[in-house]
Amino acid sequence: MAFSYGNRLKLSIFGQSHSAAIGVTCEGLPAGVRIDFDALSAFMARRAPGRNLTTPRSEKDAPVFLSGVTDGVTNGAPLTAVIYNENTRSKDYSELKIKPRPGHSDYPAAVKFDGHNDIAGGGQFSARLTAPLCIIGGIVIEILKRQGIEICAHIVNIGGAGDPPFDPVNEERALFADIKQNNIAVYDDAAAEKISAAVEQVRAAGDSIGGIVECKIVGLPVGLGNGGFGGLDGKIASAIFGVPAVKGIDFGAGFSAGYLRGSENNDEYYFDENGNVKTYTNRAGGIVGGMSNGMPVIFRTAFKPTPSIAKAQRTVNLATGQNDTLVIHGRHDPCVVLRAVPVVEAAAAIAVYDALPEH
Amino acid sequence: MAFSYGNRLKLSIFGQSHSAAIGVTCEGLPAGVRIDFDALSAFMARRAPGRNLTTPRSEKDAPVFLSGVTDGVTNGAPLTAVIYNENTRSKDYSELKIKPRPGHSDYPAAVKFDGHNDIAGGGQFSARLTAPLCIIGGIVIEILKRQGIEICAHIVNIGGAGDPPFDPVNEERALFADIKQNNIAVYDDAAAEKISAAVEQVRAAGDSIGGIVECKIVGLPVGLGNGGFGGLDGKIASAIFGVPAVKGIDFGAGFSAGYLRGSENNDEYYFDENGNVKTYTNRAGGIVGGMSNGMPVIFRTAFKPTPSIAKAQRTVNLATGQNDTLVIHGRHDPCVVLRAVPVVEAAAAIAVYDALPEH
Amino acid sequence: MAFSYGNRLKLSIFGQSHSAAIGVTCEGLPAGVRIDFDALSAFMARRAPGRNLTTPRSEKDAPVFLSGVTDGVTNGAPLTAVIYNENTRSKDYSELKIKPRPGHSDYPAAVKFDGHNDIAGGGQFSARLTAPLCIIGGIVIEILKRQGIEICAHIVNIGGAGDPPFDPVNEERALFADIKQNNIAVYDDAAAEKISAAVEQVRAAGDSIGGIVECKIVGLPVGLGNGGFGGLDGKIASAIFGVPAVKGIDFGAGFSAGYLRGSENNDEYYFDENGNVKTYTNRAGGIVGGMSNGMPVIFRTAFKPTPSIAKAQRTVNLATGQNDTLVIHGRHDPCVVLRAVPVVEAAAAIAVYDALPEH
Amino acid sequence: MAFSYGNRLKLSIFGQSHSAAIGVTCEGLPAGVRIDFDALSAFMARRAPGRNLTTPRSEKDAPVFLSGVTDGVTNGAPLTAVIYNENTRSKDYSELKIKPRPGHSDYPAAVKFDGHNDIAGGGQFSARLTAPLCIIGGIVIEILKRQGIEICAHIVNIGGAGDPPFDPVNEERALFADIKQNNIAVYDDAAAEKISAAVEQVRAAGDSIGGIVECKIVGLPVGLGNGGFGGLDGKIASAIFGVPAVKGIDFGAGFSAGYLRGSENNDEYYFDENGNVKTYTNRAGGIVGGMSNGMPVIFRTAFKPTPSIAKAQRTVNLATGQNDTLVIHGRHDPCVVLRAVPVVEAAAAIAVYDALPEH
Repeated sequence: MAFSYGNRLKLSIFGQSHSAAIGVTCEGLPAGVRIDFDALSAFMARRAPGRNLTTPRSEKDAPVFLSGVTDGVTNGAPLTAVIYNENTRSKDYSELKIKPRPGHSDYPAAVKFDGHNDIAGGGQFSARLTAPLCIIGGIVIEILKRQGIEICAHIVNIGGAGDPPFDPVNEERALFADIKQNNIAVYDDAAAEKISAAVEQVRAAGDSIGGIVECKIVGLPVGLGNGGFGGLDGKIASAIFGVPAVKGIDFGAGFSAGYLRGSENNDEYYFDENGNVKTYTNRAGGIVGGMSNGMPVIFRTAFKPTPSIAKAQRTVNLATGQNDTLVIHGRHDPCVVLRAVPVVEAAAAIAVYDALPEH
Repeated sequence: MAFSYGNRLKLSIFGQSHSAAIGVTCEGLPAGVRIDFDALSAFMARRAPGRNLTTPRSEKDAPVFLSGVTDGVTNGAPLTAVIYNENTRSKDYSELKIKPRPGHSDYPAAVKFDGHNDIAGGGQFSARLTAPLCIIGGIVIEILKRQGIEICAHIVNIGGAGDPPFDPVNEERALFADIKQNNIAVYDDAAAEKISAAVEQVRAAGDSIGGIVECKIVGLPVGLGNGGFGGLDGKIASAIFGVPAVKGIDFGAGFSAGYLRGSENNDEYYFDENGNVKTYTNRAGGIVGGMSNGMPVIFRTAFKPTPSIAKAQRTVNLATGQNDTLVIHGRHDPCVVLRAVPVVEAAAAIAVYDALPEH
Repeated sequence: MAFSYGNRLKLSIFGQSHSAAIGVTCEGLPAGVRIDFDALSAFMARRAPGRNLTTPRSEKDAPVFLSGVTDGVTNGAPLTAVIYNENTRSKDYSELKIKPRPGHSDYPAAVKFDGHNDIAGGGQFSARLTAPLCIIGGIVIEILKRQGIEICAHIVNIGGAGDPPFDPVNEERALFADIKQNNIAVYDDAAAEKISAAVEQVRAAGDSIGGIVECKIVGLPVGLGNGGFGGLDGKIASAIFGVPAVKGIDFGAGFSAGYLRGSENNDEYYFDENGNVKTYTNRAGGIVGGMSNGMPVIFRTAFKPTPSIAKAQRTVNLATGQNDTLVIHGRHDPCVVLRAVPVVEAAAAIAVYDALPEH
Repeated sequence: MAFSYGNRLKLSIFGQSHSAAIGVTCEGLPAGVRIDFDALSAFMARRAPGRNLTTPRSEKDAPVFLSGVTDGVTNGAPLTAVIYNENTRSKDYSELKIKPRPGHSDYPAAVKFDGHNDIAGGGQFSARLTAPLCIIGGIVIEILKRQGIEICAHIVNIGGAGDPPFDPVNEERALFADIKQNNIAVYDDAAAEKISAAVEQVRAAGDSIGGIVECKIVGLPVGLGNGGFGGLDGKIASAIFGVPAVKGIDFGAGFSAGYLRGSENNDEYYFDENGNVKTYTNRAGGIVGGMSNGMPVIFRTAFKPTPSIAKAQRTVNLATGQNDTLVIHGRHDPCVVLRAVPVVEAAAAIAVYDALPEH
């Protein structure tokens, strides 16, 4: 099923950009977890538009819990939370039904669903559906934090600017807190300014821009994941490819490992002062044989630029059967990467939680 | 379940490197498919060691079909095929139980399975388990071919050498046939020589080397895959991360898309001379909104260098609790990438087949 | 996952009896299906309380579609429908937290969820959650009807009264329509009167009563289902055991088959006048080897009496650790079987749809 | 997938009656379990033909472990065990391809698989595939026993004879041991004689006979299973319907509960002398709200008579399109119920294990 993920923690996301509501149903959260609504709101706010450089559209993404929570505590029943959409259906999307937008889901969705797909705002393919992902992700992040597991993503590239990579072997938990407080998810203030300038320039040009997000997970027990298709890397990749606009993922040395020798890429082991097994380096990104090895898990995710741009573009007219031209109106997000950072954290948290054994 | 993949086509891989057999059970193949055993053998041979530059170990990977096939034709029952392991358990692996090899699964597996894991030859984490994947992959490749869908992977980097990327918009089916006949999966003969030299040099140094494989799928119908976690890209990524040594995957412009503007990255549509919708460019790698758009699907996979190298390496001694040194004996594959090419094709074929609607 | 069912059609039910809403998310409905809201309302009304002899509580179970439907037509996105609960939390359920009701889920739920379960109205274990099942069931029933497949259940026992069994070999579609129009799901008017009298007598006594429902499915293609755990009977049983108060299911001759000889139980084949393969008898209940054989599928479901009764009952006091006595207040449904009839149809429809091949 | 079962413990059964082998792959067994091969052999022997009154065919059902076990201990890798079939394909089954046997899978299988199904010995629909189920079931039974959970089934009806029902509230573990030692799975010696006589009479008549098996599970923790489709009863039913010839299942009072009042059917609670919560009666069969309540789980399974009988039967000739007559040759099992007893235990054990939380 396309909009479902997980085994231990099974979530099903639903909604279209302009349906009455978007939301998520989740089975597998333990009963008795007090939900920290303030932490959840703060987490959701990092994804919400209007916070900084992104789309001027106003969205109030306050989740409403329909089930699974009694007096703020999970009760063991499936948890369903929704975000009601406001001002839906206000616009005429009929042109897009016949003139698919380059880079968008419009054309294959029209073929797949024989024209019955909801095209308004991107329908079920909208990045808006990352909001329900963040509801569950935010709850899971808090649960993981109580177990000593922390997750933080930051921007390593937008328009050539971005943070340096995370330290691959040390934990940097304090740095995580810094990044999460910033409007732009970097710890390097100079990078923030450059990113801000790059995005403004792109917005002024009616264009958009992609980027690369790096994510680090610390505090994992050894042995999460498995061989075969059950690797922790594969589980994370599955969750991350559920985020719109993702075009690639790699772990540790990643694509660079394709240029290394074994003697350069292997991470040698040692006992640290506490008797824990560590590696001197972390080119594996914390995962060998599909399993966590106790070092930080580090991966990078590539986001393409939003396909909605102001420039006139060539497309086909499915009604006339002729080549045509499309101008997309309205104001759009010049860079989804800024808002995608907590979404990456949410997806990673869900994948990790799903890989954890039950207590 | 770690060693299972798919919904429409569900396969379960089993075995350890040195167990009595390795194999696969597969439900979901249609009844009435005549298996082309010659094509399957030829396909399996591309993965087998001893063919060219790789490990001198001799493996006879002839699959034995235990069920699901009657007189060479699938009968609708679960298909199980095994490859019997010969000369298993001949060696003493006890040192590896206490001195985990850097870069291998040894250490997290020991923790995960409390020391009960089968460490001989890497156990369930061995690349040998890609052979059963190739049995099903090879069968599926033939089924897909009869539907006009062809898949080909080639090497774009080993030691700095490799083919140029595939043409992103044209089909190149003739080129596919060329590549599959070559010992080294490239169409550029000069690249083959350079790769051969690089691998020999690494072998002589007792080292290993990683690489990058590009894969192209042509002839797909429009609309395979879905939004959310059901994207064709996510399905392919899940299958590919089931292959040992994979550290990353990206589609189309991939990580480069993180450096592009929307106006550079969007693929504009047009009607070709046959009235089919095409894009002028293919930075999407044939997938938008998680769905195939009718253009070739193109992705790259990064392989790390085999961790087994001749050089003495620092590791921990789990018995003594002291840091220690390990020298790995025996002859090992200096470059798994050469053999990984058909494995990538197999994984891609299985993912594509799983995404196809039933007829 | 407990509240999810199906492969081709995956539904996830959520909600507690007194949560803000109950509902269902469903993936796998084809795009382009116009929902017959009148038919759905009529179907839901058959399950609703207050219609006839059952609980005097007033429930307005009008489903609100949050996603998956555009202008009354399915759009291919996950369909979510909710029923908002009104007047929730009005009552004090604290006594039940410490004095579990005999026959109810209270005690094992308290242990399972460490006291965090929502006990109000039965929480996630309430028969109220059959309403979302009926939303999807009602939609699927209409889809199946358009393919010639019809499903009808009726009461064969409440208090010793009930319809005679369905004709096992002939279709009786006209009879189906009759039954669905009646307040009490029987075609035998005398039986309806006896059932009515029996239920009134039980209600007057502050007691409750069980019953047996028979369900018949006609128009199925041959070959639905499979061997092993994939039998159509097993799929139906799984769905039916998802309905609260079910204690048993059998197909065709069912438990009677345990008393028959092969020569009595076998259904011999013949070609009917249209050249279709039929059986003279139908002790198999339309299923052999887990597969539909073209004859009507017939099964019976046993419902226990509602555990909520007026009589004082012995129970334990989990707070004091002493044996205690419980008197359940409020007015309760003396016989859920009356309302369970469309629920059985819904569950059967979902199971059948899930077993149908995609076109 | 038809031949797969379970979530925590996922098993995939494969093979046809006359394929090279039948077997099972199982993921989810914990690493470090020493397999008691003697106990497993003894368990398998109870299912094997030739032991007592059943088919004179000789089958040597010794499982061969291909993977997942090292030195007799599970190693965390998927466990695959096979039973090689001997003397396969010795007979001509071509008549059955065109003249389907009444009561068998032949006809719907031919339609479903377009004639490609393996009809020899019933192919994938053969009761022979319960042998691999018993391999895993036997292992799981030993694991459960170490946790204090015991399972025993016995015959309550064959030809009007059989044991009285199990005591619904007391454990009777000693009785379990008695039953398992007997050739005919009853504790009542007079019943054994009557069953023996009934089966011999049926055999002499070239006929077959059905029966009813009751199964009891003791030592379960409270709270196994869940509401919705995740009920322990539903899980057991799913597993049981995976056994060929099953036509019905009910729990506790079962179908009788359809004739009871709430005041008769409710099981009132009390604290026993050890402070454990018990019920005075057990009409629930140990399951309320889909969850175990700490009392013995008790269910009955109805088996139809084997459809293979000596008598000439009417059938269709799919080649000529005419009605025809079939005489089935060979010696067949007059009563599968005798051998089905351990299969019921195996299926129940697997369902229970799948419902247990990980430690």
